Amino acid sequence: MKVDPWNVSGDIDYEKLIKEFGTEKIDKKLLERIKKHTGELHYFLKRGIFFSHRDMNWVLDEYEKGSKFYLYTGRSPSGDMTLGHLIPLIFTKWLQDKFGAELLFQFPDEEKFLFKDNLTFKDTEHYLHENMLDVIALGFNPKKTKFLIDTKHATAMYKPACMIAKKITFSTAKAVFGFDNSNNLGQIFYTAMQSVPAMLPSYLKGKNIPCLIPYAIDQDPHFRITRDVLPKLGYYKPAAIHSVFLPPLTGPGGKMSASDKLSAIYLTDDEKTVKKKIMKYAFSGGKPSIEEHRKLGGNPDIDVSYQWLRFFEEDDGKLKKHYNDYKNGKLLTGELKQILIDKLNKMLKEHQIKRKKAESKINEFIYRA
Amino acid sequence: MKVDPWNVSGDIDYEKLIKEFGTEKIDKKLLERIKKHTGELHYFLKRGIFFSHRDMNWVLDEYEKGSKFYLYTGRSPSGDMTLGHLIPLIFTKWLQDKFGAELLFQFPDEEKFLFKDNLTFKDTEHYLHENMLDVIALGFNPKKTKFLIDTKHATAMYKPACMIAKKITFSTAKAVFGFDNSNNLGQIFYTAMQSVPAMLPSYLKGKNIPCLIPYAIDQDPHFRITRDVLPKLGYYKPAAIHSVFLPPLTGPGGKMSASDKLSAIYLTDDEKTVKKKIMKYAFSGGKPSIEEHRKLGGNPDIDVSYQWLRFFEEDDGKLKKHYNDYKNGKLLTGELKQILIDKLNKMLKEHQIKRKKAESKINEFIYRA
Repeated sequence: MKVDPWNVSGDIDYEKLIKEFGTEKIDKKLLERIKKHTGELHYFLKRGIFFSHRDMNWVLDEYEKGSKFYLYTGRSPSGDMTLGHLIPLIFTKWLQDKFGAELLFQFPDEEKFLFKDNLTFKDTEHYLHENMLDVIALGFNPKKTKFLIDTKHATAMYKPACMIAKKITFSTAKAVFGFDNSNNLGQIFYTAMQSVPAMLPSYLKGKNIPCLIPYAIDQDPHFRITRDVLPKLGYYKPAAIHSVFLPPLTGPGGKMSASDKLSAIYLTDDEKTVKKKIMKYAFSGGKPSIEEHRKLGGNPDIDVSYQWLRFFEEDDGKLKKHYNDYKNGKLLTGELKQILIDKLNKMLKEHQIKRKKAESKINEFIYRA
Repeated sequence: MKVDPWNVSGDIDYEKLIKEFGTEKIDKKLLERIKKHTGELHYFLKRGIFFSHRDMNWVLDEYEKGSKFYLYTGRSPSGDMTLGHLIPLIFTKWLQDKFGAELLFQFPDEEKFLFKDNLTFKDTEHYLHENMLDVIALGFNPKKTKFLIDTKHATAMYKPACMIAKKITFSTAKAVFGFDNSNNLGQIFYTAMQSVPAMLPSYLKGKNIPCLIPYAIDQDPHFRITRDVLPKLGYYKPAAIHSVFLPPLTGPGGKMSASDKLSAIYLTDDEKTVKKKIMKYAFSGGKPSIEEHRKLGGNPDIDVSYQWLRFFEEDDGKLKKHYNDYKNGKLLTGELKQILIDKLNKMLKEHQIKRKKAESKINEFIYRA
């Protein structure tokens, strides 16, 4: 198992990640506490899709004392967005709605440029635009959401990034990211830019504002550094809440990768493409023959179609029915795939309509210093 | 001898530096060629104060073909400016006047913040302002001179800096600057920011414009990297012309350091302070007693007052007379010191008047994207 901001591979053992990274599991008590404020629990919480955190209790303590947190998340624009990218974003939007929270949304458009040989700034410029449309389409509140784009907002970010960078040695970057002498200077500096949104509002207002960062757990190394450094500059450690990865179409484990065209479904894929990909590539938990499947049943715990329904079918009752029907052989793999296809195509169709309307809204979302 | 952008110590052997750094000595042929365009030679050139270069002949080839170069130099605002800082600036102003050249003047206000533990951005902000006054007081043409301030112009600089940084590995930074695991991430990235002005006009205009960088030779490691990287991005290597260091008051060798209060005279020092410092600390090439001095003469080649007159007495005739008078014992050390004191105080008085007037001009000089 390998999990860092640029590589996720192998079978992911999330319990082990909690131990390795030193985070806390989201337990019933915390869920109850969240529910007290949100009225209901997002199904990502109920299903353990958001499974780990740092300092959520502190953030809620502050919230209860009247000190509201803001949210910070982001997207590195290096390709078209996939279903996998949606998970932290859907949840961030829910948190924004439930807690009335401001959101700093970072587009670190230099990150992947620095880490991918063949990616140019022309490419990232293109994907930045495309990705902004996807993010806006998710329905974030434009009055409470600001897009912070590293190369366009560098004057707001570079000075605080230097304050952060001054507190991080190359030793630390080596230990946390596995860097060596062959890393380029931009890669080495980059993590400081990723820390900036976790302190920028506090820095600008001259007073500490709690920050909560929802993200997929692979980004945790960056934020371990952030949490180490910010107190040295007089700021709060940001709190964090972590999601698992949407598994790739082609296998039960790992993380969907936007660069592996087979394992990913893009937010801009049309109905036929979605159908074709799922029918052709979705890893099946079914038995080799219909007879055997009817008799012995399938294994939903490794079937990717079922796994994906856990992420996209909000209705607990329906999900449970699919689970049971598949497990007892009533539902064949092809039928389960069709259920997923219909669910996704309905969702993507709506997304794509909102995405078109987003074009005229970009300007509202851009951060102004 | 140690010469790098952050440390200069020991007896400086400039011939050896030319070999070690791989630069070229400024020879008579080059001086003649420069004179063809400038009409006269600046006394810094005649006296070998500017002694080394890279690609000056190429810059002049381009100039003669009608492709004008621009100048790039800078000042890291980390303290009050000294007489030593003036040397490359006086010469840059001369080049601007003689060649009608545009000048990009960088104030890398994050550099020393990153390299000095106790320096804050509040400090650099203060020195930035003070240093800008000194630079403007030197008489640069506001129509042709733009101040590029790293933290204030980061949106113009960070993206090209990332393009540069992508081409520099930590290995290279280790080899060139002697960095190790204890360097912070900002220090490691910084050299990319120092390279930016050497390509920014070409990058913005989408066509190659020759660049000439006058600087004291200790900055050469940065620009070796710049010259290595820019062609990989499709830009010209910048040309360079290098000065020796103004020696410290207290010794015949090395470099005046702004942080050593005894060895430095500041551009804001008043007449009494200048007199006191020179009388008290200027290293003497004289003999122990007046009798001996009269009989055997002094040694102007190690006498700091004479050395400084080489930098500040424009009149070759007067300088020669001081040399001879001191060497043959006609001039005592105290008298030579008084000559220097008078020269400097006249110069600084004029500078300080211009410096006051500079306050209202700052805005004209600030770079606009």
